[in-house]
Amino acid sequence: MIHPGLRVLVLNSGSSSIKFELFRMPEEEVESSGLLERIGEPESRLKCRLDDKDELIERRVHDHSEGLGIILDLLSGPASTGSRPIDAIGHRVVHGGEGFAEPAIVTKEVEEAIEDNFALAPLHNPPNLMGIRAARERLPGVLQVAVFDTAFHQTMPPHAYRYALPEELYLEHQVRRYGFHGTSHRYVAKRAAEMLRRPLEDISIVSCHLGNGCSMAAIKGGLSIDTSMGLTPLEGLVMGTRSGDVDPSLPAFLSRTAQMSPKEVDVLLNKKSGLLGLSGGLSNDMRVLLESEAAGDEKARLAIDTYCHRIRKYLGAYAAVLGRLDALVFTAGVGERSPAIRARVLEELSILGLHLNDARNQRVVGIEADIASEDSPVRILVVPTNEELMIARDTYELVLARGPSAA
Amino acid sequence: MIHPGLRVLVLNSGSSSIKFELFRMPEEEVESSGLLERIGEPESRLKCRLDDKDELIERRVHDHSEGLGIILDLLSGPASTGSRPIDAIGHRVVHGGEGFAEPAIVTKEVEEAIEDNFALAPLHNPPNLMGIRAARERLPGVLQVAVFDTAFHQTMPPHAYRYALPEELYLEHQVRRYGFHGTSHRYVAKRAAEMLRRPLEDISIVSCHLGNGCSMAAIKGGLSIDTSMGLTPLEGLVMGTRSGDVDPSLPAFLSRTAQMSPKEVDVLLNKKSGLLGLSGGLSNDMRVLLESEAAGDEKARLAIDTYCHRIRKYLGAYAAVLGRLDALVFTAGVGERSPAIRARVLEELSILGLHLNDARNQRVVGIEADIASEDSPVRILVVPTNEELMIARDTYELVLARGPSAA
Repeated sequence: MIHPGLRVLVLNSGSSSIKFELFRMPEEEVESSGLLERIGEPESRLKCRLDDKDELIERRVHDHSEGLGIILDLLSGPASTGSRPIDAIGHRVVHGGEGFAEPAIVTKEVEEAIEDNFALAPLHNPPNLMGIRAARERLPGVLQVAVFDTAFHQTMPPHAYRYALPEELYLEHQVRRYGFHGTSHRYVAKRAAEMLRRPLEDISIVSCHLGNGCSMAAIKGGLSIDTSMGLTPLEGLVMGTRSGDVDPSLPAFLSRTAQMSPKEVDVLLNKKSGLLGLSGGLSNDMRVLLESEAAGDEKARLAIDTYCHRIRKYLGAYAAVLGRLDALVFTAGVGERSPAIRARVLEELSILGLHLNDARNQRVVGIEADIASEDSPVRILVVPTNEELMIARDTYELVLARGPSAA
Repeated sequence: MIHPGLRVLVLNSGSSSIKFELFRMPEEEVESSGLLERIGEPESRLKCRLDDKDELIERRVHDHSEGLGIILDLLSGPASTGSRPIDAIGHRVVHGGEGFAEPAIVTKEVEEAIEDNFALAPLHNPPNLMGIRAARERLPGVLQVAVFDTAFHQTMPPHAYRYALPEELYLEHQVRRYGFHGTSHRYVAKRAAEMLRRPLEDISIVSCHLGNGCSMAAIKGGLSIDTSMGLTPLEGLVMGTRSGDVDPSLPAFLSRTAQMSPKEVDVLLNKKSGLLGLSGGLSNDMRVLLESEAAGDEKARLAIDTYCHRIRKYLGAYAAVLGRLDALVFTAGVGERSPAIRARVLEELSILGLHLNDARNQRVVGIEADIASEDSPVRILVVPTNEELMIARDTYELVLARGPSAA
């Protein structure tokens, strides 16, 4: 059965924002994309690229439903005639708990499951669900799909996802490693296999998503078998403002010596730490830190060194977990666009079979490329991630799978 | 200058115990050793091996000073004539903060420094200091040396010891990775070099201390450059009752969903987690878990698998940090005495150049041996640790260094 020219809208709903991208499928052409920010504030702001033109709308938007209405009006054309209908909507949902190893068509039960995971992702799942409800209100009857950030990592074995804690915490409070950025890790692993012209099922990959949030995954035969983010997106690598790994006694220590509450510690670890904290408040932006370091700033250097050191540790760890390494993939902001960081991470890592082609690395910014030297046993790839496209594909596939009743 | 037959007493003072070992130096002969337990309880208990005879004394001991007095009476011979004098005392001290990269002769300033670190090691430093004060009281004028568990790791570079936290936490609250078991890691690294007949300065070692507490260290040219324990001995590997690494959001999550205080969480992570927690309360003893697993217990299997998985991750991490690996060393209870665990940790780790001689591994229990296969590029060593001997050596060296006024 052929669905020519289905239009799939991908939504990523935050607490005061909606990011959207409209795809024509299966061509995977982007018809439009944009970002509505400051929902609920006096002056909201919608930036949008539509038919190759940029638009900017500034006006008050009270809630997600109103915001989505404005976006849909814009996408449907000036007369709001619905002449260009939307056939399906794919939503990014951060936390699927243990219930979702795959994307799911949104039903009442799925909405309840997203709500059940509010405690696990208090900042993300509530706005994600707001986006779903707004879409149902504005486009009743249109197929909606939830694509979970955690789903890809549901293939981890128990010894990788369980913490060494009393089992009641797992059984009663769902405390375990979930992992995030799953859609991104899945996308780049698939692209890596295509670039290497090898079946994904046959290769072992470490993928390294270095954006504002950073995480790494050990991917064996296309399945995630370990990842650095855990119960929440705080664990693991050094990030822009997040600490990543610390001694688990730190909250108790800070409670004792600095009279900080668990909530204060959590804010500190999530908002004031990472590159920003290490650099003495200088910046959470790697470009700024690299410039400051070049100008002689020692704190910037420490922040960058610590960031790279942590990546190297996970790289070695996942090589050991995989038992074999065919490719390392860099993706997301820093991974795609910072040759300097890639070079520092890979310095003297021949023990893992990683040899960089330095000249080639320097030239690769924001494009797909193999930056390993000719004789490197392990390939080193740069793959710009595209979570929106992956969500559009997942959504399109579920439209097809549902059969003739769809669209 | 020669000090024939100096007698060095090594003390490890816990909150209600004193462990002691009396060495004749430089011969490194153990004249006596023992353990006084339940200090301050109605019935204290002193087990001692003296002149190849076992002794057991049960009576009330009120405090460390009284306890040490009893031990000294025992060591000095039946008549307490002091006919066998003690020439120096070496104390194990857990936390030296940033002030001590070497053993130190105890002075007023050193005692104050140990006290300054009470906040960093509230369970260990206070009794360690009690032991020092009791020794000064009982043996005034005898040289005392403090050997710090943290000292060996003071060579870590900042990118390894700093957490990605606001720098004020480091500057004002001394929050950083310190690492522990330093005396053990130092001892086995030295022995490893001797066994391999290579200068310690030339080789890269990962050492793996698997006792009740567990930690690993990356040792380059004899210097620790990274280690798994952190601000406290809670971070890192899965231990008997300690969790090791968890998501740093866990305390805030448990505060929110289970109304637990930071202190309750700390007790949970230190006393009820690790192998004990994962096995559903079955045991913190690896021998019991291995037996239960063999009998079909799935929780025991999960606990062991998770324990080994965590070691494998640090092994890979430290191979990457070192950039080269000459030897892996297993030590302490499980490391020395469990061929099954060593085999599981090393399964399919040829990516790191580690190949076990299975038959040889099975035979090695509690003795020094190289258990790698002939053609393994990286050697795999079992080295029974001996922290007491290391403390005796350090103490003896400081006696010699102090010159003629000593002893």
